[in-house]
Amino acid sequence: MTASTASPLPSVNRQFVLRARPVGMPKESDFQLVEARIPALTQGQLLLATLFLSVDPYMRGRMTGIRTYADPVDIGQVMVGGTVGKVIQTTHPQFQVGDVVAGYWGWQEFAVSDGKGLQKLDPHVAPPSTALGVLGMPGMTAYFGFLDICQPKPAESAVVSGAAGAVGSLVGQIAKIKGCRAVGIAGSDDKIRWLTGELGFDAAFNYKASGNYAQTLKEFCPRGIDCYFDNVGGPLTDAVLPLLNLRARMSICGQISQYNAAQPEPGVRPYIHLLTKQARAEGFIVSQFADRFHQGVRQMAEWLKEGKLKYRETVIEGFENMPRALIGVLGGDNTGKMLVAVRQAL
Amino acid sequence: MTASTASPLPSVNRQFVLRARPVGMPKESDFQLVEARIPALTQGQLLLATLFLSVDPYMRGRMTGIRTYADPVDIGQVMVGGTVGKVIQTTHPQFQVGDVVAGYWGWQEFAVSDGKGLQKLDPHVAPPSTALGVLGMPGMTAYFGFLDICQPKPAESAVVSGAAGAVGSLVGQIAKIKGCRAVGIAGSDDKIRWLTGELGFDAAFNYKASGNYAQTLKEFCPRGIDCYFDNVGGPLTDAVLPLLNLRARMSICGQISQYNAAQPEPGVRPYIHLLTKQARAEGFIVSQFADRFHQGVRQMAEWLKEGKLKYRETVIEGFENMPRALIGVLGGDNTGKMLVAVRQAL
Repeated sequence: MTASTASPLPSVNRQFVLRARPVGMPKESDFQLVEARIPALTQGQLLLATLFLSVDPYMRGRMTGIRTYADPVDIGQVMVGGTVGKVIQTTHPQFQVGDVVAGYWGWQEFAVSDGKGLQKLDPHVAPPSTALGVLGMPGMTAYFGFLDICQPKPAESAVVSGAAGAVGSLVGQIAKIKGCRAVGIAGSDDKIRWLTGELGFDAAFNYKASGNYAQTLKEFCPRGIDCYFDNVGGPLTDAVLPLLNLRARMSICGQISQYNAAQPEPGVRPYIHLLTKQARAEGFIVSQFADRFHQGVRQMAEWLKEGKLKYRETVIEGFENMPRALIGVLGGDNTGKMLVAVRQAL
Repeated sequence: MTASTASPLPSVNRQFVLRARPVGMPKESDFQLVEARIPALTQGQLLLATLFLSVDPYMRGRMTGIRTYADPVDIGQVMVGGTVGKVIQTTHPQFQVGDVVAGYWGWQEFAVSDGKGLQKLDPHVAPPSTALGVLGMPGMTAYFGFLDICQPKPAESAVVSGAAGAVGSLVGQIAKIKGCRAVGIAGSDDKIRWLTGELGFDAAFNYKASGNYAQTLKEFCPRGIDCYFDNVGGPLTDAVLPLLNLRARMSICGQISQYNAAQPEPGVRPYIHLLTKQARAEGFIVSQFADRFHQGVRQMAEWLKEGKLKYRETVIEGFENMPRALIGVLGGDNTGKMLVAVRQAL
């Protein structure tokens, strides 16, 4: 067997494994940095060097040990997550050294793969990191979760919570493309300026500066709410309910305000509002749209090229900072897509 | 003008008007029995003598003074509601004395009508009171609210709250017709016996005898819940959430446990459950299906004839008992459809 390689090849891999199930907000000590030997490739494999790690709120859910739509991460197991990397050695006929690919090999600096589930990226089309953002899972989440579940119509009002995040920032822009009035809710004045100043949201407010969500929402949505895309949940979503218009649609994408709660906090039941407004609330997981991702990616890439979509990345350098980055994204430190860049000594 | 009449004709009408907006459960003193002169008919009118008054939980909502999907009843205004009556005088070319019709003339013993919105009933096809039950609004609520919103599939599990009510008792039977496993929740052992013994529900339980809704539901739904048809809300619905299966559908028809609450009581927010189960909760008002009522009535009448649908009526005699009947239906006194029969001295 002849392996095509870049030299020199690494022999040791660094990985983050789950050390403890977090109580409340994860702590750095809930993760453990371990070293593992990189095995020699067998026929039909390739060795990947990680370039970018995706940092996403859903990762919190995988740490709880409760099976939901996906298996939980076990204690001692490598944390899961989306990744972009470069092929540095290969015995696989369809991959060459230097190929840049997106995949899901988790929190590690290197990975051996048989090529399944990898997607080759063309760096001339878009920067590789976009495969973890606007052209990847967050992009598809925004595209299908908003268009399919909210089914927005021109002149409707669309409210997005977590509006400055990787998904929310795209949802508001897609709402604008579809002719809606886009209102964003985010957690800092800088984020608000970005949403209204650069991304074209019609209005946005900093919930941390609002003494009364219900009142603020009412001011920002004088004609009520037709589409609500929820990344946050909790008291913000409670405040949305009385403003729902007839036949309103709530797309439940995330509930970041609740992920760290040890016990579910009591809140407002939405049923009376759903009933009197003939409204709908629907949860989704992006993977349910997997057979149409190619359509979504094509459309999002076109909007990017046309300048109708903008995106921003919050990039943290250094593999060892991955736990801190996840804690950061759960606390809203990011504007746009949160990534960790792994600097390879290659 | 020649009016066709039955003799002797009444000159005085009795009506119930709203006297006060109720706080909590309505009291009899929230209604006032008033007398009004019956005007002489002009051309194209008819005089109706009420035979049956429909008694429905939604009437509580019309007393609050808050506009939802329908205008509220004003203080001093005749209470609204579905009715069945007999034509006792007519100058309308399309109606004859003796015709039995269904309409919506509210809580009064007589009404003058121009014929609009009236539906002629054929007493040979079904008893006239069914126009207020299985072949009327509650029947259409069950038919479209369950089939359209829950979209049940064979072998799925369907749970109905308020299962012994006019709507719930039909929903469980439609679920059986569609091949589902039907589980009912109701408020007395007698009701439970009726549901499982006569109506063919696979299982049912008395929530008032359950110390722990979550535990009882788990025992009654060992394979989780695919369809939930909710008439009740509150802690019962909270307990349903953890049992929702993947892609479950909740049809929100009523929230009778909450209608008398002065302030909405805090409860469990459903969003985490909707999200992890890719599930949906949707409210509806039966009138949104109005353009398909003819299909629904035809199908329900066929199932009735085939013996696949059974119904029961709880009939209270005497117009003056209407307030008591509404208070009764809000407290769950009825099994099946609650009606007030008006005995006319005609």
